[in-house]
Amino acid sequence: MSEKPSILIVGAGAIGSFYGAILKKAGCSVSTVLRSEYDVVKEQGIRISSSLGDLSYRPDHVYRDGETPEDYPDYLILCVKVLPGVDRVALVKPWMGPSTRLVLIENGLDIERELADAYPDHPLISCLAFIAASRTEPGVVEHKAYGKLVMGRYPEGIDDHCRELSDLFQAGGIGIDLTEQVVGERWRKCLWNTPFNPLSVIANGADTRTILDAEGGEALIRAMIREVMAVAEAEGYPMDEKLIDLNIEGTRKMPPYKNSMALDYLNGRPIERDAVLGNVVTIAERHGIPVPHLNTVLVTLRMRAKLAGED
Amino acid sequence: MSEKPSILIVGAGAIGSFYGAILKKAGCSVSTVLRSEYDVVKEQGIRISSSLGDLSYRPDHVYRDGETPEDYPDYLILCVKVLPGVDRVALVKPWMGPSTRLVLIENGLDIERELADAYPDHPLISCLAFIAASRTEPGVVEHKAYGKLVMGRYPEGIDDHCRELSDLFQAGGIGIDLTEQVVGERWRKCLWNTPFNPLSVIANGADTRTILDAEGGEALIRAMIREVMAVAEAEGYPMDEKLIDLNIEGTRKMPPYKNSMALDYLNGRPIERDAVLGNVVTIAERHGIPVPHLNTVLVTLRMRAKLAGED
Repeated sequence: MSEKPSILIVGAGAIGSFYGAILKKAGCSVSTVLRSEYDVVKEQGIRISSSLGDLSYRPDHVYRDGETPEDYPDYLILCVKVLPGVDRVALVKPWMGPSTRLVLIENGLDIERELADAYPDHPLISCLAFIAASRTEPGVVEHKAYGKLVMGRYPEGIDDHCRELSDLFQAGGIGIDLTEQVVGERWRKCLWNTPFNPLSVIANGADTRTILDAEGGEALIRAMIREVMAVAEAEGYPMDEKLIDLNIEGTRKMPPYKNSMALDYLNGRPIERDAVLGNVVTIAERHGIPVPHLNTVLVTLRMRAKLAGED
Repeated sequence: MSEKPSILIVGAGAIGSFYGAILKKAGCSVSTVLRSEYDVVKEQGIRISSSLGDLSYRPDHVYRDGETPEDYPDYLILCVKVLPGVDRVALVKPWMGPSTRLVLIENGLDIERELADAYPDHPLISCLAFIAASRTEPGVVEHKAYGKLVMGRYPEGIDDHCRELSDLFQAGGIGIDLTEQVVGERWRKCLWNTPFNPLSVIANGADTRTILDAEGGEALIRAMIREVMAVAEAEGYPMDEKLIDLNIEGTRKMPPYKNSMALDYLNGRPIERDAVLGNVVTIAERHGIPVPHLNTVLVTLRMRAKLAGED
């Protein structure tokens, strides 16, 4: 391919801004669609400090959410949080040209389905980001560590679009694991996220060490991981029991930290409850698999949301 | 009996102050042991507004916690919260004369054992209070509704001490249910308290309506009640399944309200986690009965306590 494909980032928070910068570095034209940060990015671009060096850039176009596009992008990369109030199908609609490929860099399980159903003729690439990055102020992102993407065609396989995008990300300086089974990779990531993230929220933002060291804490996490595994297996993704030990040991080796959902909660931001937990419980119910520990945490979060007038 | 027995209330919060007033009204000498509210009660007595009329009284003696008694009481009524940091055995020790009967008006399950073990030669009377009362300021109590006590000898039976005390309470104007199986009555009360109280705390102080109406909320409460029932049955107190419906229907009929543990939590006061929930889970483990819903809530509360530096 002689000319580099054009990229549109929808939802340029920390994640979207960072991966946009990588593709910009790889020589793509990179535009953004913004809501609240439109003015500041339009004026000063996106500033990113990173261990990879200064990744600041000016998007080729800065669109306001709701605007009409000048051109349709080759790849539309969606990086918004998966929340009940966010209609992702509507959000990308104005920007989906006839040959636009849709790329998700988002957390959680079973988050592709509604987009795949809405845009059946567009290739859908699903990605999991392993990255520590945060938006420190409007238009400013701090990339702290990591950055690898696990990527595959949804619901399965690896196609030329995946390969092209993977080459571009790698040219920009980050690692990509292409996978034939991206949904299986989501289950694997949820083995950790689904227990730890929501539990840390109802435990008032507890860090990993507090969760594991409280009396009965490690046993509870193990029981929750086992529940996620049972559901994954029913979905066709059996996993090795040893992953439980590996997840616990890996967590114990790291310094205590608060996961992103705990931080969202502590900072008054909405949490991806259903993407990370609710969808797992729904799938479990479909298979008739009991998940009492996961369900207790989920329903508690729903009570909190109802109390706050959010549900 | 010609002369009325002497009473000492240890822990004269809302509950202790109220039941002291009832016995005072019945003609007993009633003294109190106080800590933080010693000065105000010494000076102005205890003021109680109640639907039964003004129940204000001056205790015959006001002792400071740690003082040496002038006389040993016939009945020592312990009304402190059951908390890990509160050594109830030590608290009553200075006041336990050779013929003092120990009376507990406290919440929770298996809260008698350590006192029965420490004072095996003293009759132990266990009571459950069905009352709405709160301490509005130091030395001032508002009695809002109810007041019935369920009372029995621990671990079982009804003896003359129970009958004497019951007669005095009834003379003072409140209803008493004497029971041969006070532990069974505790299980019956815990059928409601053990699910609702701790769950309301991790749900950020949710009221009964929010708990039942959140998606999956009623089902979760039912599952938790079923777990408590299974443990009660293993302990020798089988209960009718219909009690589940009755508890749910009864709760739905009342206006939405926040239970006392939710209020304690919201007001930054310690909660009776182990008395109401932890002991139930411990007994379940002893019998090998799975209680995944109760355990998830318990461990979450432990994580919160650990995070706050309390555990």
